[in-house]
Amino acid sequence: MLAKMSLEEFTATLASGAPTPGGGSAAALAGALSASLLQMVCDLTLGRDKYRAHEESVRQIRQKAEALHRDLLALVDKDAVAYDGVMAAIRMPKETESDKAARKEAIGRANLFATETPMATAEGCVMLLGLAGELVGKGNPNALSDVGTAAMLAYAGLRGGAMNVRINLGGIADAEHAARARERVQRIEVEGEKLREEGLRAVFATGSLQ
Amino acid sequence: MLAKMSLEEFTATLASGAPTPGGGSAAALAGALSASLLQMVCDLTLGRDKYRAHEESVRQIRQKAEALHRDLLALVDKDAVAYDGVMAAIRMPKETESDKAARKEAIGRANLFATETPMATAEGCVMLLGLAGELVGKGNPNALSDVGTAAMLAYAGLRGGAMNVRINLGGIADAEHAARARERVQRIEVEGEKLREEGLRAVFATGSLQ
Repeated sequence: MLAKMSLEEFTATLASGAPTPGGGSAAALAGALSASLLQMVCDLTLGRDKYRAHEESVRQIRQKAEALHRDLLALVDKDAVAYDGVMAAIRMPKETESDKAARKEAIGRANLFATETPMATAEGCVMLLGLAGELVGKGNPNALSDVGTAAMLAYAGLRGGAMNVRINLGGIADAEHAARARERVQRIEVEGEKLREEGLRAVFATGSLQ
Repeated sequence: MLAKMSLEEFTATLASGAPTPGGGSAAALAGALSASLLQMVCDLTLGRDKYRAHEESVRQIRQKAEALHRDLLALVDKDAVAYDGVMAAIRMPKETESDKAARKEAIGRANLFATETPMATAEGCVMLLGLAGELVGKGNPNALSDVGTAAMLAYAGLRGGAMNVRINLGGIADAEHAARARERVQRIEVEGEKLREEGLRAVFATGSLQ
């Protein structure tokens, strides 16, 4: 299980020539790191008199970040499993016509599954990017660089997840399904760019970064 | 040592209200993940006839990514140590005038050190972002989404590192030193935005992402 590996082991395994874990797992981990930083900033904010006005919304941000932390950490493993499925389908025999048909069907199914995990990563990350933007104005300003870093990590997870969806779309047999997924991922990318720019602008507008 | 923690433990520790590890360590880890993905793509490229024309430059990219992987993973821990130093200085006694002077001096010194680790992260990440851009045209195109994800992780590490430099600049006594660091970090940010845009454009121009 990848989530049980140390940072040292995980990065070494990622660096190896084995196809998994790959970009999809790294994108999910970026999301989990983003969520964790948001949780930290919420904890450095909650229960302090100075930020009492935002207590309730920060508590809600914290709750959502906690759930996304759990989901995205699970996606680190799920993405590798999904991609291993694609590799296994590719290695199926292709000697007879019926072999070829079975292999083609298996590849299509595996690719479909392999677009779902990075799609879930991109969707989780777009939520985190929104939460980070909200926390810029509500969180403890001493932790502003942590909120900003969380936003950048969510952006990386979003764009990384989206690219991992797109590279597998070509292998999906159902053209209509592929078109819908393409539309969905594009909407997330556009939203991600908008939130990245707004987030950076808001972070710098506070004046806390010199 | 943070690098020996599992992904699960590290993200849980990051999520806790303790001030370290924080955004600086997360940014360094994003850089280490980026470097690892680039190493993987190099390994999926080297020694294959199809990509023989780029063999030598891919080998060089691999070597640089390997060194940056090591450096950035070390920065995950170094950043936490540096920031613990700031917290320790802030907690120094401030009863007498001489207490106050010693505390102020210690805070200044600790802040100086606390800008150096995220600066090293941002510098490592700008190099990685450049290497990722180079690899888009030279690496195995089946791993294009991994190169793209590596670029986004390097971008996140760069912007995150830069924000963690900026938030500590106010605490540095030596104004000239602070001004030089501000200039340096701004140059890295501008370069980072340029490389991010170029990288994304190059990835999408290949036509491999649907």
